[in-house]
Formats: sequence, C-alpha cells, structure tokens
Amino acid sequence: MSKLRTFAAVLIAVALSAWNAAAIAQTDPLPSWNDGKSKQAILDFVAKVTREGGPDFVKPAERVATFDNDGTLWAEQPVYFQLLFAFDEVKRMVAEKPALKSNEPYRSVLARDLKALAAGGNKGLMQVMALTHSGMATDAFNASVDKWLTSARHPTKQRPYTEMVYQPQLELLTYLRANGFKTFIVSGGGVEFMRVFAEKAYGIPPEQVVGSSGVVKFRLDAGGKPELFKESKIEFVDDGPGKPVGINRFIGRRPILAFGNSDGDLQMLQYTTGGSGPRLALIVHHTDAEREWAYDRTSHIGKLDKALDEGKAKGWTIVDMKADWKTVFPAGR
Amino acid sequence: MSKLRTFAAVLIAVALSAWNAAAIAQTDPLPSWNDGKSKQAILDFVAKVTREGGPDFVKPAERVATFDNDGTLWAEQPVYFQLLFAFDEVKRMVAEKPALKSNEPYRSVLARDLKALAAGGNKGLMQVMALTHSGMATDAFNASVDKWLTSARHPTKQRPYTEMVYQPQLELLTYLRANGFKTFIVSGGGVEFMRVFAEKAYGIPPEQVVGSSGVVKFRLDAGGKPELFKESKIEFVDDGPGKPVGINRFIGRRPILAFGNSDGDLQMLQYTTGGSGPRLALIVHHTDAEREWAYDRTSHIGKLDKALDEGKAKGWTIVDMKADWKTVFPAGR
Repeated sequence: MSKLRTFAAVLIAVALSAWNAAAIAQTDPLPSWNDGKSKQAILDFVAKVTREGGPDFVKPAERVATFDNDGTLWAEQPVYFQLLFAFDEVKRMVAEKPALKSNEPYRSVLARDLKALAAGGNKGLMQVMALTHSGMATDAFNASVDKWLTSARHPTKQRPYTEMVYQPQLELLTYLRANGFKTFIVSGGGVEFMRVFAEKAYGIPPEQVVGSSGVVKFRLDAGGKPELFKESKIEFVDDGPGKPVGINRFIGRRPILAFGNSDGDLQMLQYTTGGSGPRLALIVHHTDAEREWAYDRTSHIGKLDKALDEGKAKGWTIVDMKADWKTVFPAGR
Repeated sequence: MSKLRTFAAVLIAVALSAWNAAAIAQTDPLPSWNDGKSKQAILDFVAKVTREGGPDFVKPAERVATFDNDGTLWAEQPVYFQLLFAFDEVKRMVAEKPALKSNEPYRSVLARDLKALAAGGNKGLMQVMALTHSGMATDAFNASVDKWLTSARHPTKQRPYTEMVYQPQLELLTYLRANGFKTFIVSGGGVEFMRVFAEKAYGIPPEQVVGSSGVVKFRLDAGGKPELFKESKIEFVDDGPGKPVGINRFIGRRPILAFGNSDGDLQMLQYTTGGSGPRLALIVHHTDAEREWAYDRTSHIGKLDKALDEGKAKGWTIVDMKADWKTVFPAGR
C-alpha cells in the first residue's frame, strides 16, 4: 500500500508539472491584436483583477464586462445592419402585399432612395421600423431575423452579416470569459434583433443582451395559446444616458470593463469608470478605410467626437483599428 | 515504465469505482421535501430533461427556471416585506425630518394604522413608496435596504427577513443549478430591493433578477461623479401579464420550469407551459397555518384562485406546504 502511495505521489507530481509547463507556454490569447499599448492595457487589466490576494483583485461575480454592438462587435457601415434588415423586410412584405408598393415611405425604400426617405425626417424611418418590427408575435419576428441572417449579404463586402463581426473582439470576449468575466452586450440596437444571433456569433446568451425595445403585450392567440405580441410603441432606448440606465435595470451591477465606439457609449464609459477599484474603458476608433471604414467626428453613423476627447483626456484606451488589429474580420467560411 | 503504467491503470480503476459508488449512494438532493407526488414530479422532470440522447433532453443553455419571490421563495405575510421595509424607512426618515410626522399618510404609517392608510386608496401607499424608494441615488437606496435586512425582524416570527426564506426552495434552486439550469427570480417586487439580498439568500446574481421598477435617470452628481437617480414614476410592473413580458425583455428565452404561488403568476405559468417540449409548472399552496400561514382564494396578499383552478385542470404541480414540506424555514443562525 505504501508503494502504491509513492507511485500515486509521483503520478500527481508528473501531472502537475505538465500542467504548469502548459500554463507557462500558453499561446497568445489575443492573436489578432498587434502588440502595443491597447493590447497591453487589456492584458495588464485582466492580470491584475484576477490576481488572488493582489490589491486589485475583483471577485468573479463582479467581473462584468459590457460591449456596445454596432461598430464595436460588428461593423455598422454604410448604415446599421438592423436598418438593412428592415429594408429587406419591406421588400419581402411588399411582395406579399403589393398595395404597399406605391406608398411612401415604402416606395423610397424599394428604390433604395435613402435621401427621399431621410427627407421625411424620422417619420418615414419610424414607419419602416413599425412595419417590420411590430404587428407580429415575438417568435415570428425572431424567425424572420434568423432567415434574413442566413440569406442576406452585406451590400459592399458581400459577406453574410454574421461574418461582419470583428475577429479581435471575438478573441477578447473568449479571453475575458476564460478569466471569469461575464460578458454582456449593451447596445442601442433592438434587443430582440440582437438576441437571434448573439449566442452563435459572440457566445453571449440572450439574457446577457441589453438593448432598445418596443412595447410587448401578453395575449392568447386565436387558438388560446399564449404569445407575446410586438406593438409599434417604443419603450426603451438603450443609447447615450440610456446605457447606464439599461445596465442598472438589466444587469444590476456596475461593469468594471466597458467597450464602445461612439458618443452613444460615452455615459456607459463614464458610469463604468466612475466606480471605485480597477476599471477599464475602451473605444474602437475606426481608422481603417482599406480593411473596414474610417470615420469619427462627422459621421452620421457611429459619430465619435465628445467621447474621443474625453477618452483621450482621461486616459481611456483608444483602439486604433488600423494599427492595433492584425485582422479585422474572421476568415470566410 | 510498464510497471508504472500498470499502477496508473489500477489507480484510475480504483478512483472510477469510488466515483460510481458515490454517485449511486448519493444523498437526497431535496431532503426538506417529503416523498410524494410533488417531489417526484420535480425529480422526474429534471431526470428527463438532462438525459442525454433521451427524447426530452434540453440543452443546458435552454434550461431556464423562473421563480416568483414573495410567497414562493420567502414568506409574504402579514404583508409583502418590501412594504414593511417602506414603513420602517418612514420611521427612520421622520426621525431625520420631524416635519413629516403629522402629515398623512406618514402619521398612519407611524401609528401602524393600516386601515387608515388603506382608506386613502392607493394614493397613500404610493406616497409612502415614493418617499422611501425615490429621490436618491441607486447606491444610497441599496445601502438602506442592506442595513434594514441586517437589523429588522419579522413582526411575528421575530426572525431576520433573510431567514424567512423557504428551506425546500433553497434546496430546489441548488438542485436545479447542479443540473445545468439557470435560475431566475421573476417577481412583482422591486428589482433593486430584491437584488440586494438575492445573491446571498438564494445564490441568484443581480442580473438574474427580474422585477418591477421605477424610472431611473443618469446624471452627474454635485462633484461631477456619474450616478443613477431614482425617480418616483413607475416604469414597469412585473406582475400578471407583465411577467411573461418581463421574461421576454430580460431573459429573452421561454422558461421550461416556472414556480409561483398566486394569481399574479398565472400568465408566467401559461407562457411557460405554452412552449413545445417538456415543461413543469409549480404552485406553492399555503396550507400550513401552524408553521407558516394558510391562505388562498380570499387573501389580500398572494391571492390564489384562478391559478389554482387552472393549475388543477391542467395538471400543474400544486405543492401543498403542509404535506409536501418537511421543514419550512431554515434553522436559525
């Protein structure tokens, strides 16, 4: 029996040493990030909040990381993809109800005449959103989004939208989760729209997606089956000052890491860094006209102006897409 | 080396056999539940949804279980505990601002004259809730709740409120989580109130608590620090038809198991059982006047009438507290 014990001890020692060697020789967790200040800031932050006994240690339950979606986890040009979904839905719906065809704003949408659509102010856009995002059960809406995602292609990049996500961010999400973080989306986009793909695309389950929403009503359908019916009234806009409000409402805990890309993320970044203890605020700066797009202070989509100034003044990590990202999009499948 | 291999094989075989023996002799996961139909329904349901390859297998990501709080996870008599918190807060606030003392509805609250308070209809109650639940930052409110929970005692049971939770339900929550379920609270109670104790009391983190809420505004305090300020306007009532709406908004996935105790849970139970595949709906029936309270169809608090009829008709599991629970409250500390 004592011989067996000795052998057991040897076996355990061998196993442990192999384990340690593996840990030391571990591969780069962020291979699509170029070495530099941004990558280092992430690695340093994760190291210090996970170092047990260290002065900056944060319990796993409090390792909340929030990410904007449009322009932070996936692209947002030439316009938010949810709007492109709405335009495609108008086309599909007009095929079913040809009477809509000659009515504005649908006529402009079908003609891809965004100028005419915009000329009507927000009203035309709201009508398009109401037509395509309400008047149906949540299950039916989710099925439409799912169908669109599997068939539609981005107008200039010709990729499925689920491949318009950023490879470096996928690695970051995985790296954070491997270090005990819970990762959330906090986006101005529609919460139900995002939930259809967030789990498959980012590994973020529906209950960790915070977004804008319309009023939903519980009712029994014609057959007496309970369903949730989407109404056209807007209920919550998860943008700007709405983001910390949404974080409070849905998550109930202040993030220690937040990642955005536009002025709509400013208050989320302020709220995150306003807590005590270690905090990391990051901004994607779209500087890469060749591989993606280059835009900031004057862009209609993803305008980054005030948050860029405040971020620079406060030492937030400004991620320069062109310099910091080795690759932008994942390899096509 | 071959000798070492032989010993390793022996060690592994020994370890595996010990493991299997432990699994077979595993202790009852629900020791505070008496053997009977209710307990068996739970055990059978969990067994079938976790049996890989079985016809009723449910992926862990979809094992969503939702629990009402008041009357389901902790007691709710003589009135909802959040209201008792509000009454105690009035007392504390009056000590700070004596001018409030002679004003209604505060005078009635201080005199514990619930009849006079109720005579004013909802208005008096809303004023009490507004005084104690708004006009402050979320952090300050959370601190008040936390302080109250550590000092206040239930008026008749003389226990701290955090020990007014149900021992059988604590075991059920643990058992579900051990079987890959994600457990959520879906309650008419205030979401911020519940989040203060849900993690410690039930092991449910803030982001898995769905409840009623008031409007919250993001702002910078006098020193320029970001804070969330609680306003008195009600924003969302997570009760009755609001429960499936809240589930859709916060969780984004239909539960496969839901547990309630009153007519306010009816729509949550309908929505849960309305999905395809295996579903389990449970109702706590308060039948134990000796150890807890006995009430149902005519109670002002936790009225159980329509849901009891529908539950019986549809074969939902009606948990008879007196018969099904070996113990009600956890042993005092």
